[in-house]
Amino acid sequence: MINQPLLPHRFEIVDCTTHEQTAEAIRTMVTRGAGAVGVAAGYAIAQAALEAPENGFSDYVRQAVRTLSSTRPTAQNLFYCVERVYQAIEDAVPGGPDAARSAGVTESIRLSDEDVQAAKRIGEAGADLIADGARVLTHCNAGWLAFADWGTALSPIYAARRKGKNVFVWVDETRPRLQGARLTAWELGQEGVRHCIIADNAAGHYMRTGQVDLVIVGADRVAINGDVANKIGTYEKAVVARENSIPFYVAVPLSTVDWACPCGDDIPIEERDQAEVLGVRGRDAEGCIREIRLAPDSSVARNPAFDVTPARYIRALITDRGVVSPQDIAGIAHSSARQRRI
Amino acid sequence: MINQPLLPHRFEIVDCTTHEQTAEAIRTMVTRGAGAVGVAAGYAIAQAALEAPENGFSDYVRQAVRTLSSTRPTAQNLFYCVERVYQAIEDAVPGGPDAARSAGVTESIRLSDEDVQAAKRIGEAGADLIADGARVLTHCNAGWLAFADWGTALSPIYAARRKGKNVFVWVDETRPRLQGARLTAWELGQEGVRHCIIADNAAGHYMRTGQVDLVIVGADRVAINGDVANKIGTYEKAVVARENSIPFYVAVPLSTVDWACPCGDDIPIEERDQAEVLGVRGRDAEGCIREIRLAPDSSVARNPAFDVTPARYIRALITDRGVVSPQDIAGIAHSSARQRRI
Repeated sequence: MINQPLLPHRFEIVDCTTHEQTAEAIRTMVTRGAGAVGVAAGYAIAQAALEAPENGFSDYVRQAVRTLSSTRPTAQNLFYCVERVYQAIEDAVPGGPDAARSAGVTESIRLSDEDVQAAKRIGEAGADLIADGARVLTHCNAGWLAFADWGTALSPIYAARRKGKNVFVWVDETRPRLQGARLTAWELGQEGVRHCIIADNAAGHYMRTGQVDLVIVGADRVAINGDVANKIGTYEKAVVARENSIPFYVAVPLSTVDWACPCGDDIPIEERDQAEVLGVRGRDAEGCIREIRLAPDSSVARNPAFDVTPARYIRALITDRGVVSPQDIAGIAHSSARQRRI
Repeated sequence: MINQPLLPHRFEIVDCTTHEQTAEAIRTMVTRGAGAVGVAAGYAIAQAALEAPENGFSDYVRQAVRTLSSTRPTAQNLFYCVERVYQAIEDAVPGGPDAARSAGVTESIRLSDEDVQAAKRIGEAGADLIADGARVLTHCNAGWLAFADWGTALSPIYAARRKGKNVFVWVDETRPRLQGARLTAWELGQEGVRHCIIADNAAGHYMRTGQVDLVIVGADRVAINGDVANKIGTYEKAVVARENSIPFYVAVPLSTVDWACPCGDDIPIEERDQAEVLGVRGRDAEGCIREIRLAPDSSVARNPAFDVTPARYIRALITDRGVVSPQDIAGIAHSSARQRRI
C-alpha cells in the first residue's frame, strides 16, 4: 500500500506481510479512506486465514476479526469487508483449512474488484451533476488514494473530465491531518486537474461570494435515515452550502450504509490523539519530514476525526446505483444487498 | 510591541524606533489584531511627526499617513487611528512643528488609553451574557494581544471570571496563521482560563452536539448595516451557530464602525501570501522555530485573511456603549462619535 502519511513529500510503498501488520497500518493511517481501509481489512482477514494453524483455525481467524474491527471505529466499509471475508472463510471451513484460505483470498480480491467497480459507477452517475466549467469544493480525500481505485467524491470529477468538461476543484486543506492539502492536492496534480488549496476556514467565504457551484464529499458511514458521518468539518461545509443554495453531494458505495444504524447520532465518532491538533508534520527546507509544535506546551486539544451531517443538508447521494435522495438510501441499499445475496 | 509570530514558542519585545519600522511591523504582522494595529498605526503617525523636518513637515506626515494606510486594508481601527492622530497634528501645525509633534504624541497616547477603556467596557457589557459554567467558542485572537489591553472577544470572559464565574473556552486554531492555537491559547493560559484547542473543522461538531453555549468573536470592520468583517472562518461559525440556535456575538469598540461602508460586501478583503496556507511555522523538537511545507510543490493556494458575516447571523454586538443589535449599531456609533466631538 502507499504510505500516505509521507505524501506528498515522499512516495513509498509499504508491504504488510501479516494480518497484524495490516491492522497496524490501518490503525496508524498508513492507509486511510473508507474504501481503502475496508479492502485492506478484508485482505487482512484473508492473511489471517493463510497464517492460521490447522488446529484452532477458526479461533485464529476470529481473533483477527476482533483485531481488525478494533483498528478504527467509524468507517462502515471496514466492518462490511471484514464480515464478508470472514463469512466466506467460515462457509468454506467444512471443506478444510485450505479450502477456507482459498475462499478468504478469493473473497478479499472480489471485494477489491467490487470497490473499483462501485467507484467507477459513482463517477459515471455523478459526472452529469458537474457542468462544464464547474467549480467543485471537496473536503478531505475521497479519491483513488482512499479506495482501491477512482475514489468516490473525486470519481465524478475524473469522469466529467473524460467527457471533455473543464473542472476546477477547491481543496479544503482538512486539518488536522491535512488530507486535502497533502493527498487530494497531490492526487489532482497527478491527474492534471486544476485545483487550489484553501484553509478550511475559507470555504464559506468562497461559497457566500458565489465561487463554488457544488460540493462533493465522501462518507465513512451512512445511517439508514440518510445521515452521514464523514471527516470532521464536513458538517460545517454542508450547513454553509445549504445556506447559500449550493448543492451538497455525498458520494458513497452502498456498502457504506449501516443497517444497524438508525441515525447519525448512533455512529461512533473516533477521537484521535490531541498531538495531531497541537502539532503538524511537513517537509523542512532540507527535504526532511519533521513534526513541529504549534500550540503552547500547557494547552490541550480535542480531536474528533469525524462529524455527522444530517440528511436534510444533503441534496443527494451519488452511489454505485445512481444518484438517490438520502431519504431513499435505505430502500435502495436493501434491494441491492438482497440482489447480491441471490 | 510583543513579537507575535514567535508566540507561543518565544517571548520577545520588538522596538520600532521609526514610523517606517512600525509600518513594517504591522505589514508583517509582528503586531496584529484590530486594536493593536490601530494603536500602533496611531503611534507611527506621531513618530512621523517627531521625525519630520521643519521644512516640509506636513508633506512628511502626509507621506507617513499613506504608508500606514497601505499596510493592511481591512481593519477599520487602523484608518480611524491614523486619521485621528493626523488631524490632531494638522490642527496644531499653525503653532509650529513642535506644537504639532506634541499634539500627535498626546493624541496617540489618548487613542491607546481609549482602546484600553473601550475594551474594559466591552468586558463589563459582555460579562452578563456569560453564565456560570458557560462554554464559549472563539475564533482567532481578540484578546489583550490584539489590543492595547483586555481585548474584545476575550474581555467579557475575563470580566465574567472576575465576577467569580467559571468559564471554559473552545479555541479554534484559526488556520492559516493559527492565531487561536498560538495566541489565544497562550493568552488564556497566562490568565489561567480553562480552554481546549480544536481544529477549525471541529467547531461545528461541538455546536451541533450541544457543547457550545455561545460564540464570541472580534471584528476588523463593521459596516453601517451591521455586517462585519473578521478573520477568515468567522462566517462559517456564525452560520453554524445560528443553525444550532447558539447566540453569536461580535465584540467591538465603536471605532470599528466604518461610516463610509454601507454593507459588508463593500469591505476590502486582504488576500495574503499563499505560502501561509501551503506551509506553517512552529517549534521543532530542538526548540528551533522553523517553517515546513505541507502541500505538494506543484499546488497553489488562495489565502483570504478575512470574510464577511452578514448582520442577520449576529445576535448582538458587544460594544463599549453596551450590547446592541447589529441593526442599531449605526445610530449608536453616530451619537457616540458626535458626543466625542463635543
